[in-house]
Amino acid sequence: MPRRGLLIILSSPSGAGKSTLAGRLRAWDASLQFSVSATTRAPREGEIDGKDYFFVSVADFQDQVADGGMLEHARVFGNYYGSPKAPVAAAIDAGRDVLFDIDWQGAQQISNSDLQKHVLSIFILPPSITELRRRLESRGQDSADVIEDRMQKSWDEISHWDGYDYVLVNDDLDSTEAQLRTIISAERLRRSQQPQLVDHVRSLQSQFGDKT
Amino acid sequence: MPRRGLLIILSSPSGAGKSTLAGRLRAWDASLQFSVSATTRAPREGEIDGKDYFFVSVADFQDQVADGGMLEHARVFGNYYGSPKAPVAAAIDAGRDVLFDIDWQGAQQISNSDLQKHVLSIFILPPSITELRRRLESRGQDSADVIEDRMQKSWDEISHWDGYDYVLVNDDLDSTEAQLRTIISAERLRRSQQPQLVDHVRSLQSQFGDKT
Repeated sequence: MPRRGLLIILSSPSGAGKSTLAGRLRAWDASLQFSVSATTRAPREGEIDGKDYFFVSVADFQDQVADGGMLEHARVFGNYYGSPKAPVAAAIDAGRDVLFDIDWQGAQQISNSDLQKHVLSIFILPPSITELRRRLESRGQDSADVIEDRMQKSWDEISHWDGYDYVLVNDDLDSTEAQLRTIISAERLRRSQQPQLVDHVRSLQSQFGDKT
Repeated sequence: MPRRGLLIILSSPSGAGKSTLAGRLRAWDASLQFSVSATTRAPREGEIDGKDYFFVSVADFQDQVADGGMLEHARVFGNYYGSPKAPVAAAIDAGRDVLFDIDWQGAQQISNSDLQKHVLSIFILPPSITELRRRLESRGQDSADVIEDRMQKSWDEISHWDGYDYVLVNDDLDSTEAQLRTIISAERLRRSQQPQLVDHVRSLQSQFGDKT
């Protein structure tokens, strides 16, 4: 029986380092597939369609939701965001793990879906709120109002930390990256993630029958 | 809220390297406490009471079982074996993880006990039955009959591999040791193993209230 991939969900308030960490994980393990979200918001400068997001119209988005084509979706700041199901299903059926950079609402929807047995969810907490604000401000791309909105949403996100399997405090990117690698490596060693062991045990059984 | 320790159960057929690996894990992390089993069998040469086993009489063993003093117990080859509860409870209450080198019957009893939330169970499979037999014979301390008994018990043990959280094939001691470290390190990062994070989130919440 072939292995099915894991759905690895990373959530955190913006500014806690999640995107940097997701990028490092892909550099560590090129077999990790990133789940590219669909959104109805306008592209920001430098964002590439199909890489950063799938930029779609509201009508297309709603059609996909109606057809059951989104693993999860939500409306945030007036825009829709969602995780298209087809590329995820194809990846995990081929035994590849898929990484999701999504918020607690999406995490909850995927954790309650029919794929829940394959979900590994990780929440990343910032070391302090001061540090979170500093990181949001240092991007220099948002107005004060947008930053306040983001801070408000940050607290909303943090308050759902206790729905996750693993929780890390990102004091230091290198240690947090190492912890993420450890968690993913360990989860791959779970019995439920190694269906090929059934064949190994059958082979042991047949050797046992031959020799004793 | 202080962290409670994990009950880390290692099971495998004899000859699969379990004792060597348990020793290596203690060398890696001196805070790991070994659960010393009680037994009614006679000490083998070199075995130290209180270190290798607690050697007790059948009457004492049965009294402890009757008093609820054993986390698990079983009769194997006419002798009783069991894990005394008191030292384990003291260790996990102090936040220390406890390592158990026990068979599937013991693993099942502990996994169904009131401590099940703290149990992490790992099964170690041999690469082949030929290799298992070779390791049992190379000890040179057992008669052919005893080796046949052990081989029979080995298969009985292997056939329960699918009741464990994690399963490793011990092809190579160094890699298997590394996998065990990875699993234990990851399990310590589970939210349920980090009750101190409640304080961190409370602190974030109070900072959030102050600054925004």
